[in-house]
Amino acid sequence: MKKKKTPSDSKTVSTHIVLPNDTNTLGNLMGGKLLHWMDAAAAVCAHRHAERVVVTASVNHVAFNHAIKVGDFVTLEAKVARAFTSSMEIYIDVMVDDHKTNDRKKCQEAIYTFVAVDQYGNTIDVPQLKPETEEEKSRFDDALKRKQLALLLAGKIKPDAATEIKALFE
Amino acid sequence: MKKKKTPSDSKTVSTHIVLPNDTNTLGNLMGGKLLHWMDAAAAVCAHRHAERVVVTASVNHVAFNHAIKVGDFVTLEAKVARAFTSSMEIYIDVMVDDHKTNDRKKCQEAIYTFVAVDQYGNTIDVPQLKPETEEEKSRFDDALKRKQLALLLAGKIKPDAATEIKALFE
Amino acid sequence: MKKKKTPSDSKTVSTHIVLPNDTNTLGNLMGGKLLHWMDAAAAVCAHRHAERVVVTASVNHVAFNHAIKVGDFVTLEAKVARAFTSSMEIYIDVMVDDHKTNDRKKCQEAIYTFVAVDQYGNTIDVPQLKPETEEEKSRFDDALKRKQLALLLAGKIKPDAATEIKALFE
Amino acid sequence: MKKKKTPSDSKTVSTHIVLPNDTNTLGNLMGGKLLHWMDAAAAVCAHRHAERVVVTASVNHVAFNHAIKVGDFVTLEAKVARAFTSSMEIYIDVMVDDHKTNDRKKCQEAIYTFVAVDQYGNTIDVPQLKPETEEEKSRFDDALKRKQLALLLAGKIKPDAATEIKALFE
Amino acid sequence: MKKKKTPSDSKTVSTHIVLPNDTNTLGNLMGGKLLHWMDAAAAVCAHRHAERVVVTASVNHVAFNHAIKVGDFVTLEAKVARAFTSSMEIYIDVMVDDHKTNDRKKCQEAIYTFVAVDQYGNTIDVPQLKPETEEEKSRFDDALKRKQLALLLAGKIKPDAATEIKALFE
Amino acid sequence: MKKKKTPSDSKTVSTHIVLPNDTNTLGNLMGGKLLHWMDAAAAVCAHRHAERVVVTASVNHVAFNHAIKVGDFVTLEAKVARAFTSSMEIYIDVMVDDHKTNDRKKCQEAIYTFVAVDQYGNTIDVPQLKPETEEEKSRFDDALKRKQLALLLAGKIKPDAATEIKALFE
Repeated sequence: MKKKKTPSDSKTVSTHIVLPNDTNTLGNLMGGKLLHWMDAAAAVCAHRHAERVVVTASVNHVAFNHAIKVGDFVTLEAKVARAFTSSMEIYIDVMVDDHKTNDRKKCQEAIYTFVAVDQYGNTIDVPQLKPETEEEKSRFDDALKRKQLALLLAGKIKPDAATEIKALFE
Repeated sequence: MKKKKTPSDSKTVSTHIVLPNDTNTLGNLMGGKLLHWMDAAAAVCAHRHAERVVVTASVNHVAFNHAIKVGDFVTLEAKVARAFTSSMEIYIDVMVDDHKTNDRKKCQEAIYTFVAVDQYGNTIDVPQLKPETEEEKSRFDDALKRKQLALLLAGKIKPDAATEIKALFE
Repeated sequence: MKKKKTPSDSKTVSTHIVLPNDTNTLGNLMGGKLLHWMDAAAAVCAHRHAERVVVTASVNHVAFNHAIKVGDFVTLEAKVARAFTSSMEIYIDVMVDDHKTNDRKKCQEAIYTFVAVDQYGNTIDVPQLKPETEEEKSRFDDALKRKQLALLLAGKIKPDAATEIKALFE
Repeated sequence: MKKKKTPSDSKTVSTHIVLPNDTNTLGNLMGGKLLHWMDAAAAVCAHRHAERVVVTASVNHVAFNHAIKVGDFVTLEAKVARAFTSSMEIYIDVMVDDHKTNDRKKCQEAIYTFVAVDQYGNTIDVPQLKPETEEEKSRFDDALKRKQLALLLAGKIKPDAATEIKALFE
Repeated sequence: MKKKKTPSDSKTVSTHIVLPNDTNTLGNLMGGKLLHWMDAAAAVCAHRHAERVVVTASVNHVAFNHAIKVGDFVTLEAKVARAFTSSMEIYIDVMVDDHKTNDRKKCQEAIYTFVAVDQYGNTIDVPQLKPETEEEKSRFDDALKRKQLALLLAGKIKPDAATEIKALFE
Repeated sequence: MKKKKTPSDSKTVSTHIVLPNDTNTLGNLMGGKLLHWMDAAAAVCAHRHAERVVVTASVNHVAFNHAIKVGDFVTLEAKVARAFTSSMEIYIDVMVDDHKTNDRKKCQEAIYTFVAVDQYGNTIDVPQLKPETEEEKSRFDDALKRKQLALLLAGKIKPDAATEIKALFE
């Protein structure tokens, strides 16, 4: 059995400058561009954890609540939230520099799922994750609920089996 | 009050050739690139419906089940599924040409939500939607359930108020 | 012998948003960028008709009469006008959304010729075209005149043989 | 009256390496990409001659007879062929390095027409051209025939007035 | 007087996947692309330190000793080495993931100098740097020698005044 | 032994228009983009001289003294300054068109070193250079001094052996 790895082992950071072609006519970063950047950072993170080629399996619901402007510095931080048999849930935090206070303000988050595959595209096992910080442990626990919801929505388990989700309505 | 518009009025189609830079080391289209293309097609569609500038508000859960290869022709078809006060749900169907049979095979779908804004970024009203085909009517109805779920997950309504969702577990 | 195909069988539509990098210092879409987009849409259309790899053989004279601005939505519609032995003439109509009236206004057209080739680059036969609408039939007829003119200009036929062209001057 | 300028005064050279994203599935440079590069080089050349902002007015018929491969070095040489009142005909010669003999082999040519405009988009006068070499003089003469043909095809002059063209059929 | 800042305050990390268009015909990352990525990371770092717009003033001699391949993950880490009146020396370490051992191996370093400017392009003062780690202190000291060398090579000081450099030859 | 070649044999010229995505928030060309363009032009030049695949070995100190603006035409001229056993020093002159006077003003220069390699990445011999003009001869002589400095800085020769450099301080 493979040795467990920590979220820090595969943490991936990437900073981008928002250029004119990345924006709409209001000068705001287009949502699709940010989704693309998040996928790329998450793919590197998943690859680092799995030590194998990975492919995007899904992206969770993403809400865009903050306008990011042309010229802004966007920093993406991707970390494995939980590893299952051959899939990994990757949590991406997006921060933007506040040019006035020089702080980096979190303005977005997203969750992507990746699957490790061999050269024929067959899924292969990945190392398990050992969360360390409080936030990592909390995201590790939540990942199971999200996994159940995903299976439920895909019709692969029945509502009764989605115990974590069902509890929300009781 | 603005005149209702049909999904056909704003339907947006875009065809892309998958180029080497769009793919991972297996030669498969990267998920993030497809998310980017879907956002762009959906943005044009929402703009055509609203006749105003629009910004991406959210993208629903997207699962990537089919590998799309370098050289493939990817056709995106974006249509308004339902219009709310100032937001619009856009449904995107993704088809890939099968080079052997010359058929176009559906291999992906996604739902983006856009909001119409004025030049200061304030939300403004959009025309209502009048679905015509059976599929359009079905997606129109489902859009309400998804809206409730979104509000529920955002904590803006209580589980009891999410009647459409709660029913799934009864 | 291969079955005839209609223009609708291979019709290809692609919508682009004009981004800052696509424009000159007046904020107008550069002609070369539009030529590039038209070639890509036409290539997909020709490939869909031929069901084989295609290469651009030529582009007819193109005049740029309308300025297209940054932020505009440009929709290209490519259809086979006529198929010869191994070559196909592709007609591309370019429309731009009028953001005020929400109409799509035709502002450009172009004609590209593609040739179907095998993996060694040798030309191969393509299915014949069966035009259906009045416009398709008219373009089908004109294609023969253009073919004669192309052969004449290339010195492959003598002026006397270019009967369709010669008639223009009689 | 403005001083006449020579073709050398505004000659523009640009060398590109053909990258994977510029090619089709056969690894050949896509025609549309080459049209784009030619337009950009010609635009700089026309701007240098006019000393004003220029916009592409048209591109003449272009035939693609030679496959250009990924990794090839493509050199474009743009020179003014003739200046009219506010328009300029630009001749572009395209050469590719033969990696075996290290020669540069001409493999394409094209003719673009540009118009000089002021900041409101109105046409303005450009300096006249004084051709120097034999080739420049020959292209200068041919430009007048092409101008007549363009006017004829646009229906702006009658066939009888297109004396240079009509002569071809007599 | 502005408060001193540490290198950590403005440290900038960016991870890139090497795509086909970034490489030469051997499949190795082109030097110019890496220089571009390093400049962008360093610009963000300098901007974070200065809290003002910055422009690249120079890049020191850079040697490329390790081939970086298509598909590699390249991580750039930019930190301020020393701040002068209005200029900042930025040190960039480049690491590549070893896909076999999953280690990140340092394979490149470079030093860029940036200048902080106001909206008219005039230089303005930047906060001083307070190095913390041993490596930061060592780079802080070396930065002075490099500054002298730069002034010497630019002919702005005489060889005798370049005491740090002259000592190398004594 | 291979025949000597002149700088003209491999001279490479490339003209670029500065587009919005190439610039910082002041509308000035980013240093990293220019370094990228210079590397590409120099690579073609080195390849033309060596008639083999080449890889960037190093770039000398580059100072950015002139702001280049969006919309500017940037012309790069790359010439071999000197050939050593398997390496070549390439000199790149960068000129920008002055839109008012229509002159091309030199605003940058840089020196890149390339190495010729075979398909396994092993270095191979290149033709020697025969400078012709005064400037070419002067750059040919200076190249030896730079070579010594590079070896000295890399610790491959001792200061005493760097006779050309040492002389500067005597």
